Amino acid sequence: MTSGFSRRRMLAVGGAGVAGAVTAGAAGAWARGAVDDGDGPEAGGALPFFGAHQAGITTPAQDRLHFVAFDVTTDKRAELVDLLREWSRAAARMTARRDAGPVGAVAGLPEAPPDDTGEALGLPASGLTLTVGFGPALFRDASGKDRFGIADRKPAALADLPHFPGDALDPAISGGDLCVQACAHDPQVAVHAIRNLARIGFGAVTVRWSQLGFGRTSSTSRSQATPRNLFGFKDGTENLKAEDTAAIRDHLWVQPGDGPEWMTGGSYLVTRKIRMTIETWDRTSLAEQEAIVGRTKGSGAPLGKHGEFDKIDLAAVGADGTR
Amino acid sequence: MTSGFSRRRMLAVGGAGVAGAVTAGAAGAWARGAVDDGDGPEAGGALPFFGAHQAGITTPAQDRLHFVAFDVTTDKRAELVDLLREWSRAAARMTARRDAGPVGAVAGLPEAPPDDTGEALGLPASGLTLTVGFGPALFRDASGKDRFGIADRKPAALADLPHFPGDALDPAISGGDLCVQACAHDPQVAVHAIRNLARIGFGAVTVRWSQLGFGRTSSTSRSQATPRNLFGFKDGTENLKAEDTAAIRDHLWVQPGDGPEWMTGGSYLVTRKIRMTIETWDRTSLAEQEAIVGRTKGSGAPLGKHGEFDKIDLAAVGADGTR
Repeated sequence: MTSGFSRRRMLAVGGAGVAGAVTAGAAGAWARGAVDDGDGPEAGGALPFFGAHQAGITTPAQDRLHFVAFDVTTDKRAELVDLLREWSRAAARMTARRDAGPVGAVAGLPEAPPDDTGEALGLPASGLTLTVGFGPALFRDASGKDRFGIADRKPAALADLPHFPGDALDPAISGGDLCVQACAHDPQVAVHAIRNLARIGFGAVTVRWSQLGFGRTSSTSRSQATPRNLFGFKDGTENLKAEDTAAIRDHLWVQPGDGPEWMTGGSYLVTRKIRMTIETWDRTSLAEQEAIVGRTKGSGAPLGKHGEFDKIDLAAVGADGTR
Repeated sequence: MTSGFSRRRMLAVGGAGVAGAVTAGAAGAWARGAVDDGDGPEAGGALPFFGAHQAGITTPAQDRLHFVAFDVTTDKRAELVDLLREWSRAAARMTARRDAGPVGAVAGLPEAPPDDTGEALGLPASGLTLTVGFGPALFRDASGKDRFGIADRKPAALADLPHFPGDALDPAISGGDLCVQACAHDPQVAVHAIRNLARIGFGAVTVRWSQLGFGRTSSTSRSQATPRNLFGFKDGTENLKAEDTAAIRDHLWVQPGDGPEWMTGGSYLVTRKIRMTIETWDRTSLAEQEAIVGRTKGSGAPLGKHGEFDKIDLAAVGADGTR
């Protein structure tokens, strides 16, 4: 699966609000390290871990998510490189529906802890993707220290978001040195993957915060219907779709010259936790809900239009779309 | 769907540890009240709400769960009866893949809040079941008050569990007057159902605690493979299965004479939250894990046996099944 790619394209997670924040360093090294591990043929529903870009970004969005931010507890560059190599090997195996380690959950020595935790045995690959990101703190920590000698490789764009009105950020569930986004159609497969990466990282990383998601909250391909959020409205209608190749190139993937060369083909990620006061929302009239969102609740059409994908008139001010 | 059944069979949730605790009162009344609402034909994947027993007990276990315990905030018996009638109507609709209310999420007056919150529009019925239970506190509250005039109908068996070694019960996520277990293959369908029951209950009930589940944690039918828990072991091998009709009759459904007559055909439910110290577990040898569980991790066979469903020798003491 890795042939033809000499390096990984990394994900830089813009650190913001309740956010993992990320970008790469030893990316080339840990990708090459992972090539030794001969991956078997893909299992049904399996997506390859290696590729021109990381999976889990333009992949048609899976139904379930487990997102985790890690603090790196070592300050030894070699240990960080080893960790990323081990993670790559395990991620390539797990996304191919194999156990996290070469021995597996049940085939090892009775006297040793298994190198896979076993709860995904027998479950389908479930379209598992594992997307790894580096936070700004990996390049320079809160005290200003360049622990891994990579401060000069930090992309300028990898910076905290400005304050937004209504922000109520909790440091305990914000930030992190590394993040991993596990997406799968079966949540146990996503949780299994994160849990095994955390297990592998014992001594080098600790889990800072994590978030389980339920319900698909976006569509990333025109092959998918737009899902509804907990306000009951279609959410993500205007998202870039994988099929919009020119827009994806211009707005999603870092292009040569956009930043440090190692970021080319990578992207930026922001995670923000949104508190929805649904009790209040549920007592709001349909007309007011639609005026707030700017779309009709049933079809998802912009106000004054008929189809979900009709062009939005951003100058409209009336509830019926009048200017 | 209700023809032939003059009353609901109720679920009594044994209040214990982190537990909803439940049993019925006006069951006959609220079931009959719900009959007026003509339910359409079942949608694909839909299971009927009404039946000889409540759905969601011997139903082949769905993949996802949302469990909620409510405090009843009214002390008016008529309001409790009305609530249970409204819940029955809404539950019958939602399990049939219809909106929670007769108007629906998007078809009502623009000036009024919709009578469904909309986030399940377009999703499949997903095998949704809604199982309602009554806690001991519904019959007599913590201060000893019989708020609804039903204290004499409380089943004797509906009592708190004794203390178990290792119990660390948190009152904030224990108990409750009513509980609802929503099971579905799509978690958004389960969450939508609970959310709409809570919305309908505004002024009569408040959510005390709730729990989302991911991953099927038991099998209730021989048509299902036994799932694995987060220790990586098959869990629920010895559960009663729906096909074990004699055992189900003897051990699950309340029989005539077992308690108050209204409980006949009902059952008892205990919910307990189990904290799994997986970091420690993952560093335990395979042999020790298997000795603790008493089964092999791969096949799920009892130690010393070969097949998952081989008979357990409870007198065995050796790791190999020797006595």
